Amino acid sequence: MRIDGLQYCNWSRRIFQEMRAGGVDAVHVTIAYHEVFRETVLQIERWNRYFEDHGDLIVPARTAADVDAARASGRTAIIFGAQNPSPIEDDIGLVEILHTLGLRFMQLTYNNQSLLATGCYEVEDPGLTRMGREVVAEMNRVGLVVDMSHSADRSTIEAAEHSARPIAITHANPFDWHPARRNKRAEVIEAVVASGGMMGFSLYPHHLKDGSACTLDGFCAMMADMAERYGVQHFGIGSDLCQDQPDSVVEWMRVGRWTKQIDYGEGSADNAGFPPQPEWFASNADFPNLERGLRDVGFDDAGVAALMGRNWYDFFDKNFGPL
Amino acid sequence: MRIDGLQYCNWSRRIFQEMRAGGVDAVHVTIAYHEVFRETVLQIERWNRYFEDHGDLIVPARTAADVDAARASGRTAIIFGAQNPSPIEDDIGLVEILHTLGLRFMQLTYNNQSLLATGCYEVEDPGLTRMGREVVAEMNRVGLVVDMSHSADRSTIEAAEHSARPIAITHANPFDWHPARRNKRAEVIEAVVASGGMMGFSLYPHHLKDGSACTLDGFCAMMADMAERYGVQHFGIGSDLCQDQPDSVVEWMRVGRWTKQIDYGEGSADNAGFPPQPEWFASNADFPNLERGLRDVGFDDAGVAALMGRNWYDFFDKNFGPL
Repeated sequence: MRIDGLQYCNWSRRIFQEMRAGGVDAVHVTIAYHEVFRETVLQIERWNRYFEDHGDLIVPARTAADVDAARASGRTAIIFGAQNPSPIEDDIGLVEILHTLGLRFMQLTYNNQSLLATGCYEVEDPGLTRMGREVVAEMNRVGLVVDMSHSADRSTIEAAEHSARPIAITHANPFDWHPARRNKRAEVIEAVVASGGMMGFSLYPHHLKDGSACTLDGFCAMMADMAERYGVQHFGIGSDLCQDQPDSVVEWMRVGRWTKQIDYGEGSADNAGFPPQPEWFASNADFPNLERGLRDVGFDDAGVAALMGRNWYDFFDKNFGPL
Repeated sequence: MRIDGLQYCNWSRRIFQEMRAGGVDAVHVTIAYHEVFRETVLQIERWNRYFEDHGDLIVPARTAADVDAARASGRTAIIFGAQNPSPIEDDIGLVEILHTLGLRFMQLTYNNQSLLATGCYEVEDPGLTRMGREVVAEMNRVGLVVDMSHSADRSTIEAAEHSARPIAITHANPFDWHPARRNKRAEVIEAVVASGGMMGFSLYPHHLKDGSACTLDGFCAMMADMAERYGVQHFGIGSDLCQDQPDSVVEWMRVGRWTKQIDYGEGSADNAGFPPQPEWFASNADFPNLERGLRDVGFDDAGVAALMGRNWYDFFDKNFGPL
């Protein structure tokens, strides 16, 4: 079983075909960065068209059982997520509405302060807000997973502690391996692991040691180190693959509508666009490379299976519905 | 089995208790008159709170099987509907979105011209519009029932003919029995019946012969006459019960935001508010009276069961999902 914990590609039939070529059983896809509720619904409408037009390759999924059904029919299960709480606006009732529409992950922040918590680019991190505590409880109730990939440390630790259910970091790497602002310090990873949570390792070059030149062996050795340190059951892939996106999209991710200035985020004026992917992970068709890399650093069949998808599957099975 | 094909009460725990007292297994409730999409979602949020707070009495339903489950657990199944296409705005993609959120009936018009068809108060009825034909096909695809209760004759007949699946008039009576503008002429009823459709008989006094003074026997005799003429399988109850609503609500129904004038609809300046219900049908607790009335005009067990709910159940079972 192969599951990717996060992608935001410029979706096309070719990419869905690559999912099949790579034997990818399920992908958590981002449907909103800064979109408000109505705009998020437009993105779901767009996916409904993809499901109609490419129903031979992809199928919507809301449960682990839906992933099984997708596998059995030779298709890739698509699971919706939001990288920001903007889709719920200031309305806690939209948590259940979006869950009914298929949302299964929601980040409490995207880089900046939100109504719920603090993003990883803010100077100060006062932790979960009043509304943040309420929304986490409501997400727990319906089975919408708290994702803290783009959140600041204190907010993440408080979310892990306040949440009655495991939380996730769907796409990031350890700060100790590569000290990027989006990568996670040991105490943050410990809090997520202590919640029974999951962390998906990112293949976005800004999160990788040596960036686009990161080696498969180096990436897989990091995974081996993390598995040894915290237990293999807490980890998977969250590739953050943004295939075929124009650079205007990374600008939208960073700038949204919150500033009139350019913000380069993890990039810079000299390197503002999407960085090139490592040659061993350019598309969904390259998932077998990861599997090979994990074997080469010493994982056995069970370890490879856990990291390539089984852990995400088990996490979906426990956390995608009411308790 | 007892099913009501339409209500729009001022919902409260007392009304939900009356549903149980009346042995009502399922009710199609209106969640939108003139509301746009976001406002309709707010109404669904409100119902989500009712389901949380009164889960011992009511439960949301999307299928006939959900009605069975509600019955088995001693609760009333609630099915959402809209009396106007305003919730889909000008966006055909919202048909599937609202179906996913539980909508199972949608009127193509409410008294006036809509983007889809013509309402029963317009002078001219040019029939289904371009968008109307597309939306009916999309409603057919996902399993959202076309309801023409407030539509004009030509539009209704064209909808019945254009629809690939049976359509409904959820709440109205025969024009030949009581010549109200909202009641349906024989050729309209024939078109709905020919589609394999359903008509729910209304207990709203403006639709009743002698209004609030209509007798139970007169109402049930009309049902017997219709069953004999068209076949009992096409009919049920669609009470249009608006219990405990203030008169401001009937004004909202009639006036919405389409005019700055007062429009009295079926009422008049002297009689602008909700008319009093017939004494034998004042609340959901009175459903047993209808059953008694049907027996008294000569229906056997099978006929009573069909009209009180079994026909709606069978209709739900065939029409509430993709083909």
